[in-house]
Amino acid sequence: MKIDIGSKNCLYPLPTTLVGVNVQRKPTYITVAHVGIMDLGSISLGLSKVHYSNLGIKENKTFSVNIPSVDMVEKTDYCGLVSGRNVNKGSLFETFYGVLKTAPMIEECPINMECELYKTVDFPNHDIFIGKIIKTYCDSEILEEGIVDFAKVQPILFVMNDKSYWNLGERLAKAWNIGRKFNEPQ
Amino acid sequence: MKIDIGSKNCLYPLPTTLVGVNVQRKPTYITVAHVGIMDLGSISLGLSKVHYSNLGIKENKTFSVNIPSVDMVEKTDYCGLVSGRNVNKGSLFETFYGVLKTAPMIEECPINMECELYKTVDFPNHDIFIGKIIKTYCDSEILEEGIVDFAKVQPILFVMNDKSYWNLGERLAKAWNIGRKFNEPQ
Repeated sequence: MKIDIGSKNCLYPLPTTLVGVNVQRKPTYITVAHVGIMDLGSISLGLSKVHYSNLGIKENKTFSVNIPSVDMVEKTDYCGLVSGRNVNKGSLFETFYGVLKTAPMIEECPINMECELYKTVDFPNHDIFIGKIIKTYCDSEILEEGIVDFAKVQPILFVMNDKSYWNLGERLAKAWNIGRKFNEPQ
Repeated sequence: MKIDIGSKNCLYPLPTTLVGVNVQRKPTYITVAHVGIMDLGSISLGLSKVHYSNLGIKENKTFSVNIPSVDMVEKTDYCGLVSGRNVNKGSLFETFYGVLKTAPMIEECPINMECELYKTVDFPNHDIFIGKIIKTYCDSEILEEGIVDFAKVQPILFVMNDKSYWNLGERLAKAWNIGRKFNEPQ
């Protein structure tokens, strides 16, 4: 039986990220899971306008998207609990910079994507920052025959409905493949 | 050791959805995993301009986002293998309509979100459709004390890197909570 539950967002889980930004030339990190892919080269971040990090994205036109592993869940959650206005979150991680020079990245995260701001979409209470991925860095240990293996990344998945983080499970099937077994009943 | 792997999108996994659209008054469904959340009430779809479904979104200014379960993985993948120009994908599922009248939804999917087109962002080869969620419907079996339980939904997670679908794992921790254990080392 279908139940009408109002206008509830159920597009979950989404990957929990730590977004790296320089604000006044100092690195800060913010937890963001309201993210998305526009086309294969682009990432969106939905950031409430109240956040400190927005200032740095507007200033530098760069940011990084770092994928933490489940063993970083405490620090990752912490970066969503406190503001860079009050706490020096740059000191929580080992920071490195890449080709863009102003997008701080987290050494401890297995994946780091260095992004250039491509477009900002203005929402009533949110800045939607769309970035082009310029460079991606990853730990050698998470590669399997040159391809990122998410079983090794162990990303932290976010669900708003129960305000929880979740683990990734097992590989289920090959995409653009398993559907070939399906013969359309016409 | 960090390795530069070029500009590789690693913002995965993302939830695999079946997007429902009326084209010329007939329902069609397309598999979309390049999705995102802008703010809590909004969803983005990154759809290559070649797709048949784009015509219907532009025509009606409505669409639905349906979340299939892992037991629907074959049909879900199939909807990404064939075009609505050639195949009547509306016949694959039991369709229902809601308050918007023109956004077909899939009875078999445990979650259905009925969306109104809010904004289109033009990308070189993609239409980025941003929808406001007007109504959400779900199967009564997936609710746990009135909250959607993703352990019961069993969504199909998508990773482009290995072109695979993945299962959701176990609940890891509470968000806006586990980080309180972390005392900042300053």
